[in-house]
Amino acid sequence: MNLRSLRERELILSIRKEFSARKRGLVLGIGDDAAVIRGPKASCLLTTDLLIEDVHFITSLHPPHYLGRKSLNVNLSDIAAMGGRPRFALLGLALRKGLDKAWVRGFFGGLKAAAEEAGVVLIGGDISAAKRIVVSITVIGEAGTFIRRSGARPGDLIFVSGHLGDAAAGLRLLRSGGRLGQDRRADQLLRAFLDPAPQIDLGLALSRLKAANAMIDTSDGLSVDLLHLCEESGTGAEIDLDKLPLSPAIRRFEKKPERLALHGGEDYQLLFAVSPGLENRIIGLIKPFRLRQIGRMTRGKS
Amino acid sequence: MNLRSLRERELILSIRKEFSARKRGLVLGIGDDAAVIRGPKASCLLTTDLLIEDVHFITSLHPPHYLGRKSLNVNLSDIAAMGGRPRFALLGLALRKGLDKAWVRGFFGGLKAAAEEAGVVLIGGDISAAKRIVVSITVIGEAGTFIRRSGARPGDLIFVSGHLGDAAAGLRLLRSGGRLGQDRRADQLLRAFLDPAPQIDLGLALSRLKAANAMIDTSDGLSVDLLHLCEESGTGAEIDLDKLPLSPAIRRFEKKPERLALHGGEDYQLLFAVSPGLENRIIGLIKPFRLRQIGRMTRGKS
Repeated sequence: MNLRSLRERELILSIRKEFSARKRGLVLGIGDDAAVIRGPKASCLLTTDLLIEDVHFITSLHPPHYLGRKSLNVNLSDIAAMGGRPRFALLGLALRKGLDKAWVRGFFGGLKAAAEEAGVVLIGGDISAAKRIVVSITVIGEAGTFIRRSGARPGDLIFVSGHLGDAAAGLRLLRSGGRLGQDRRADQLLRAFLDPAPQIDLGLALSRLKAANAMIDTSDGLSVDLLHLCEESGTGAEIDLDKLPLSPAIRRFEKKPERLALHGGEDYQLLFAVSPGLENRIIGLIKPFRLRQIGRMTRGKS
Repeated sequence: MNLRSLRERELILSIRKEFSARKRGLVLGIGDDAAVIRGPKASCLLTTDLLIEDVHFITSLHPPHYLGRKSLNVNLSDIAAMGGRPRFALLGLALRKGLDKAWVRGFFGGLKAAAEEAGVVLIGGDISAAKRIVVSITVIGEAGTFIRRSGARPGDLIFVSGHLGDAAAGLRLLRSGGRLGQDRRADQLLRAFLDPAPQIDLGLALSRLKAANAMIDTSDGLSVDLLHLCEESGTGAEIDLDKLPLSPAIRRFEKKPERLALHGGEDYQLLFAVSPGLENRIIGLIKPFRLRQIGRMTRGKS
């Protein structure tokens, strides 16, 4: 997952260079969790994600209802990472022969449930056939003030929400035969992978409180996502490994949970930088969103 | 192609019913060439298309530069079909191992060229790996007044731009071993398939002149696209087969060019309905955009 992300990053850097442009109405282009254009009142956020069968999900392991939810929610997570509110979605979907109607119903049922929970409306799309299922979702959101990846400063406190590594541990359980409904603790890990929750309310609260200098969601794993924050902000970072937020569930099923917390991906939590002295602004968020300070931004390499 | 589209249509109808919603800022949802939300000054148009290797294109037959162009241009065609101006694009791309750098460079070169020609800026995206190449593009456009599929009335004159069937004839040539640069007339057909041009200027002119009651692009073939116009407008239609705009090239290579003109797809021309008596408004467009009146809207089935 990390390797993929690093190769992806190289290609993105060259595309970004090639396609860099200023244009009327464009606020923020390639390189953050979402692009930003001028909207009717607030900024308009745009993000897109591809999910491909046997690359991003395994159909036999992923109940269609959860896959429908996750397809939308990973995009909502990108909007959350900008401190925005998601509003509309477009769906590109390729289905293969042999998928039964129950699968299609389950997928759309999950998509609809996740959309309703977030107040998002599906406004268009494109459907075709293929050898493997492809789900491409684009989400349009809005934000009064949005939070970039690039605003962190040396000395900033690094916070993360929720638990890290649970999704990766859930995937490992699934691959070794674990299924929902067999064990309460295992279910926590399986759910973290199958049905991650986008941290929209946390993102909105951090935007409202003007508490985060920079933010990203933990989709590729803490190590990679933190690297993105550092590169965009021109900082370095120190992480206190003892402070990694590990769930009781991951401790029970994994001998080296720190490895998954650092390098496993798909937790879709928020990772953000707060100016020292401003921690009090987020004090009310610590408990409801399980925030944990895990390190500090440092000076970047010169 | 038509069968695919009809199945797609059934699924879209059920999705449209399931997901129908009113929401602040939403002007037009599922079912037209693009969705419309409120923009900062004008209406904001949104459209998305999936192109999948071996379904929508064959890598060995489609030079990467043209594929890059076409991936964007099919989306620009949807914006053109609303009478809008395309402004921004998001790219979802899955590449497979074994693609050489020249392919990736060619693809992005074509994408960039098409974007620059249309004044479109690539503002974000998502890149991953897969067994087959997947290109998912979302385009954001704007329109002062946009043109729906649903405004045609019985008696309206049906116009279409350009030639019909050339793209389908080009695909047939490609499949039987034809390649660019062997024959001037064949090149016209091959180009129509490999490198279709979105009719943005025509769409904008029709919007400015308030000349079209309803419009769609001919992506699925005249018969299917006209059916969409009729269904959305609640009309029927009569086509004069003698008036189908057939190119000299298609007449040379195809024995039954009418069949391809009617049912072949991917021409990406504009098909639109004009009130009788208002033809004079578009008189200046007839020559530059090769407009041809091919029939009339009739009363729908009651």
